[in-house]
Amino acid sequence: MSEAYTPTSRTQLRRRPARGVYDKARVHAILDEAFICHVGFVVDGQPYVMPTAYARIEDQVYVHGAAAGRFAAALGSGLDICLTVTLVDGLVLARSAFHHSINYRSVVALGRARVVTDPDEKRRAMASLTNHVVPDRWDEVRQPDEKELGTTTVLALALEEVSAKVRVGPPIDDEEDYAWPVWAGVVPIQMSAGAPVPDARVQPNLVFRTDRLQKRSAP
Amino acid sequence: MSEAYTPTSRTQLRRRPARGVYDKARVHAILDEAFICHVGFVVDGQPYVMPTAYARIEDQVYVHGAAAGRFAAALGSGLDICLTVTLVDGLVLARSAFHHSINYRSVVALGRARVVTDPDEKRRAMASLTNHVVPDRWDEVRQPDEKELGTTTVLALALEEVSAKVRVGPPIDDEEDYAWPVWAGVVPIQMSAGAPVPDARVQPNLVFRTDRLQKRSAP
Repeated sequence: MSEAYTPTSRTQLRRRPARGVYDKARVHAILDEAFICHVGFVVDGQPYVMPTAYARIEDQVYVHGAAAGRFAAALGSGLDICLTVTLVDGLVLARSAFHHSINYRSVVALGRARVVTDPDEKRRAMASLTNHVVPDRWDEVRQPDEKELGTTTVLALALEEVSAKVRVGPPIDDEEDYAWPVWAGVVPIQMSAGAPVPDARVQPNLVFRTDRLQKRSAP
Repeated sequence: MSEAYTPTSRTQLRRRPARGVYDKARVHAILDEAFICHVGFVVDGQPYVMPTAYARIEDQVYVHGAAAGRFAAALGSGLDICLTVTLVDGLVLARSAFHHSINYRSVVALGRARVVTDPDEKRRAMASLTNHVVPDRWDEVRQPDEKELGTTTVLALALEEVSAKVRVGPPIDDEEDYAWPVWAGVVPIQMSAGAPVPDARVQPNLVFRTDRLQKRSAP
């Protein structure tokens, strides 16, 4: 049996509890498929929500930012944060406007970020941040020198207070609406990669095959 | 000349100011292409970030939620919120790990949400919320009755304190790295619609053509 996160008053779904997912393996699968999160934090009472790349290693999610920037400074100061990851899977078209919906999988993680100071953990996190977006990229590129490591702040959020929310399946219409003469069902939505565009100075014998990106999103 | 939002201390980009966009037409174009936002709000000091659909009408962005839910109750109580919209356009693969990046367009809007109580504005907002995801859908489906309208809370955020951030173009490597023997450039990323999956009770003569979704994302 797979382990699960313990719902708290802050992560327990009240409406539509059937959409709530606390199973660790399912939460991790969502985190491992997406690569952009939205991080919420509060400065002077005002919430801010910023998109950023992330990667998971076991029960830690890592993000990074410029050491000189506001984002890393705010997160590194021990603020409570919310890290949200959303995958949009489909448009749910019902016969009534009211029952339109979206199929999605989202994860919400609450906690305080920790600045990663251990050099080994920091390098491992940075390798994951790169490889999570493009599998196996870290080992083929020029890795960071001391100066680059110094200008990058890596932050870790421990996955402890976590929930996922998932909607799947067709629209559910009211019985009397099924005769309505309009198409109803799900339009699947996916993110996909187009043809790679080399920059002006790529050596002519080098190619990038987008099928390696599938390694990330494979279920 | 197009109008622009006035940067404030909270929306002025400090790092990489060249990525900042305040031009209203460009901000609106991003808002009109995406359809999922992430809304940040604070309850008992804890920030929460929730994904939700939205639509723009002129200088208002509308979201909606179940009147009985925590989300609409929190937003409707006059909290400061942050509404963030992110479009991921490409993976930027450099020769050094450090210069990897993501091409994206994001909008951050700050302010307080207003509960929409005027019936005409509420209906117009709900029509936009439907039509923004699936163009022209509102007029072909069964529209909300009084009970459904009553169980839905519509919230408006005035676009006043707003900024966008845009990264485009190829990677920028350090000069000494250009000889590194690895492919570099941009892998375009887009959201696309797959073949529609009708639900079990669709009348057999009805079809859904995904090309109508292009009307939303057309530049």
